[in-house]
Amino acid sequence: MRPGEAAPVTVIPVTGLDEVRPGDDLGGVLSDAVSGGPAGSTTLLVDGDVLVVTQKVVSKAEGRIVPVSDDAEAKRALIRSESVRIVRYRGELLITETRHGFICANAGVDLSNVEEGTAALLPVDSDRSARRIRAVLGRRLGVEVGVIISDTFGRTWRRGVTDVAIGAAGVAGVIDLRGTRDANGRILEATEVCVADELAGAAELVMGKSKRIPAAIIRGVDRSWLRPSSVAGEIVRPPSEDLFR
Amino acid sequence: MRPGEAAPVTVIPVTGLDEVRPGDDLGGVLSDAVSGGPAGSTTLLVDGDVLVVTQKVVSKAEGRIVPVSDDAEAKRALIRSESVRIVRYRGELLITETRHGFICANAGVDLSNVEEGTAALLPVDSDRSARRIRAVLGRRLGVEVGVIISDTFGRTWRRGVTDVAIGAAGVAGVIDLRGTRDANGRILEATEVCVADELAGAAELVMGKSKRIPAAIIRGVDRSWLRPSSVAGEIVRPPSEDLFR
Repeated sequence: MRPGEAAPVTVIPVTGLDEVRPGDDLGGVLSDAVSGGPAGSTTLLVDGDVLVVTQKVVSKAEGRIVPVSDDAEAKRALIRSESVRIVRYRGELLITETRHGFICANAGVDLSNVEEGTAALLPVDSDRSARRIRAVLGRRLGVEVGVIISDTFGRTWRRGVTDVAIGAAGVAGVIDLRGTRDANGRILEATEVCVADELAGAAELVMGKSKRIPAAIIRGVDRSWLRPSSVAGEIVRPPSEDLFR
Repeated sequence: MRPGEAAPVTVIPVTGLDEVRPGDDLGGVLSDAVSGGPAGSTTLLVDGDVLVVTQKVVSKAEGRIVPVSDDAEAKRALIRSESVRIVRYRGELLITETRHGFICANAGVDLSNVEEGTAALLPVDSDRSARRIRAVLGRRLGVEVGVIISDTFGRTWRRGVTDVAIGAAGVAGVIDLRGTRDANGRILEATEVCVADELAGAAELVMGKSKRIPAAIIRGVDRSWLRPSSVAGEIVRPPSEDLFR
């Protein structure tokens, strides 16, 4: 069998989005972009696709942009106000736990790709943001898709950041392979794969950091992954299971 | 502009590999698979592609399969022998640091997808394994590609495992966006993206856990990422930079 005979997965950058402003209907803006613009007739998003949308544009649409003066103390205060706990710190770097249970640098407060003198906070509830976008896409375009809200997190022990899922709707956070068999017929033990994070990371491959591409379509994902979901419920590890806080 | 006009990234599963055994020339086996079999004439791997190969098949080819009896103490002893330090443990779960500097469950010792009574150890030097495969592909198929060896690691604070890079050749581990500008013209601070881990995770989307797909081709990656590289040198975070060990 040749590679082409098994199903590929394709990651398609979504370009041509209008500048997003507070109060904008992001689902509507995205619907326009994935159907060739407001006047377009070709829907490029199809049933079974997963649309990955970056946190920055969600935060903008939801008015989570706040003013912050360009001094270290003001920035630290803002980060603390977005945190429930400081996990580690060194110099300017703060690793904190957010209200959502995410543990990340600077409580997810972002000072790049927003206007000077402002910062972008994480959405209040990114699962809800994903559900809303998904509902608008369904209504406007008649498609059933998964939606992931992604953000850029560092990792322990490994250099470099990767994009991960902070919200999801209609696409699995974690798939559970426990009880299924490996290629040798042995029962797999405790293999839970976080496909939402892998999808978010794959989307980043076409987004870059400064190309104004705030969304990507992933086509060809396993159909069984398209189901009701939530990052809060599936991916955030509860403190009782955690060995590192 | 429509989505289709920006360049997509495609992840293509590599199927039809012969069963790999200790001592096999894995680069040769992969060359056959990505060119339609030993008798095939169509090279499906092209310049600029990245080939992601799972650790399991690399460990098999390199003879890193060892016998282990089906008892907890024997398995624990094997894991300890592959570790330089135990980082955390709870019940049966051991998080250790390997000789390579990876911090992961069970020192990367894998008991699934290998024959009963055996375990797969991590390759001795996965960067070297990647370089060897890359050299054979270049010689046999005349293509210049990147090669990543992937393995499945858990993460702190987030449920579920994802595939990450444990070895690389000819494709960046981490790309450094420091000094580049964001969409608003502001200098980005300290944005280093671990594209190798995102590529490894993307490959997993087409591999599944029990489908006998030990490799995937990723097409359409940013050409500037194709350069000499090493996971050991770029991704493994030295203890001096680390806040979590």
